[in-house]
Amino acid sequence: MPHHAAPLPDIVFEEEFITGLKKVFEEMIVFNALLGLKITSLKPERVCASIAMRNELVGHFAYNRIHGGVISAGLDAMGGLAVMAAIGARHMDESPQQRLQRFSKLGTIDLRVDYLRPGIGATFELRAEVMRLGSRVASTRMEFLGADGKLLSTAAAAYIVS
Amino acid sequence: MPHHAAPLPDIVFEEEFITGLKKVFEEMIVFNALLGLKITSLKPERVCASIAMRNELVGHFAYNRIHGGVISAGLDAMGGLAVMAAIGARHMDESPQQRLQRFSKLGTIDLRVDYLRPGIGATFELRAEVMRLGSRVASTRMEFLGADGKLLSTAAAAYIVS
Amino acid sequence: MPHHAAPLPDIVFEEEFITGLKKVFEEMIVFNALLGLKITSLKPERVCASIAMRNELVGHFAYNRIHGGVISAGLDAMGGLAVMAAIGARHMDESPQQRLQRFSKLGTIDLRVDYLRPGIGATFELRAEVMRLGSRVASTRMEFLGADGKLLSTAAAAYIVS
Amino acid sequence: MPHHAAPLPDIVFEEEFITGLKKVFEEMIVFNALLGLKITSLKPERVCASIAMRNELVGHFAYNRIHGGVISAGLDAMGGLAVMAAIGARHMDESPQQRLQRFSKLGTIDLRVDYLRPGIGATFELRAEVMRLGSRVASTRMEFLGADGKLLSTAAAAYIVS
Repeated sequence: MPHHAAPLPDIVFEEEFITGLKKVFEEMIVFNALLGLKITSLKPERVCASIAMRNELVGHFAYNRIHGGVISAGLDAMGGLAVMAAIGARHMDESPQQRLQRFSKLGTIDLRVDYLRPGIGATFELRAEVMRLGSRVASTRMEFLGADGKLLSTAAAAYIVS
Repeated sequence: MPHHAAPLPDIVFEEEFITGLKKVFEEMIVFNALLGLKITSLKPERVCASIAMRNELVGHFAYNRIHGGVISAGLDAMGGLAVMAAIGARHMDESPQQRLQRFSKLGTIDLRVDYLRPGIGATFELRAEVMRLGSRVASTRMEFLGADGKLLSTAAAAYIVS
Repeated sequence: MPHHAAPLPDIVFEEEFITGLKKVFEEMIVFNALLGLKITSLKPERVCASIAMRNELVGHFAYNRIHGGVISAGLDAMGGLAVMAAIGARHMDESPQQRLQRFSKLGTIDLRVDYLRPGIGATFELRAEVMRLGSRVASTRMEFLGADGKLLSTAAAAYIVS
Repeated sequence: MPHHAAPLPDIVFEEEFITGLKKVFEEMIVFNALLGLKITSLKPERVCASIAMRNELVGHFAYNRIHGGVISAGLDAMGGLAVMAAIGARHMDESPQQRLQRFSKLGTIDLRVDYLRPGIGATFELRAEVMRLGSRVASTRMEFLGADGKLLSTAAAAYIVS
């Protein structure tokens, strides 16, 4: 069911914005670093990241399964990143620094995660897209996939914007 | 809104069951250890735990706010623990070891978290109770509170049982 | 789990406000009338209503069970009513008419319903309370009960305010 | 993000199964008839239906907007129908009547709806697909669209299967 939010203009982010957003997302949000979240793609209409499995992320010792909390935490973070990218694309008239500051105003209102299949594997992919970006609230949809592209979890979240 | 989960018999868990469940929950589920989840109360009808704030759990560098993912991960873990306690109370005819093995069969179907207020503080309390324990599915409700008892987040989740 | 929504001042609504809100809720929102929603209590911190079972509301012909959609629709409506009552209590300096106009600005952002037990009975009770009323977003918690007080469904929703 | 559940065999339902399922869904589930839900497509991997707007379904008198409850009720019904179609496709060895009886065992565990844009229009389209069909639980994703194909609401739900 490929439905996308209102089409975004054909925008390519500047290196400074991308580097800055990566730094905020991967390093300054310390818990993201603990999860090992790494951005792999950053576009106005969709963002992707990966997580490498390691022992600290185990939720089920018997099966070496990734903890559901890594999935929910990672997908919440990704939804916020998608909103940030969509906001960034809407304010290309501002400097990269000005746009990055908008990140500090984002807040998750609520999050729902559906766990479809157990997360077992060496790496995982996370994707997020904005379904609607309003002036006060943004709605997003996220996916957590295995390295083979199998859909393991889906999520939806709402964010306060501004 | 008075709660109405099926009344559970007046059961007190044996030391062996409590110690075993703590070991599984706080140590063997490695990601719970990373979160710093510590069980403070373990009863058939309600379970409580605490998390001590530390730098690794920061979600918002500007405000020293706890990451929403710590909240979602912690509340998901707590919902599972509540189901485990309710199941344990239903099978007091089994040995503590047999009951503990039931933990490995639990799986989260889905989770919803509502973020009400920013999580700022030195420690946090987490609570969970089972709203309904069926033969195949259990439904739970969870809360994330500040040290002053202020309600910061609420959550609901469904778990596969058996 | 004691609830901790911000304590609301000890306010009693005027007859004009109550009558007006009932008219809007029970009549002007036509689908509420189709559901048969009747307000039974209207306080700043909690609202209650009832639905009488009838053939049109059947979801499961084999068991005469109420349709899950009546539950989700009713609880969404109740969450909105709870927000309206909380907003009304915050603006007692305005005339009842001015406060009632605020209803038209409310919008549901999202809704989650947990179906715990089948809804079978002659009447049902619905309750809602506001967990947090912000300047832009309100979060609510709702319950759907049998005539005997048994909890049948729970729900949570977020609303745009203003 | 077009991710589908495990690919279903290339199955075409018999006329008897389709007619029977329509009768159950559109007539015997009385509240669906009240909503005016009409199946437009019934395939193992996806189901579609439509709702014609009429005065009884109004949620917002000021704007002639469809009631959020019609959306949540309709999408819950559609998720169940999608599960029913997926189950039907899995049991083509059974007679149509045997497969139809499976409908009476379905139950919604929980439902989440995200309201993206106001529902204004003469007709609406509803779609649902199964993300995962397990032996005990099925997960679905649903969409509510305007006549112009604009995405108005999305939803996700879990169902007890058996």
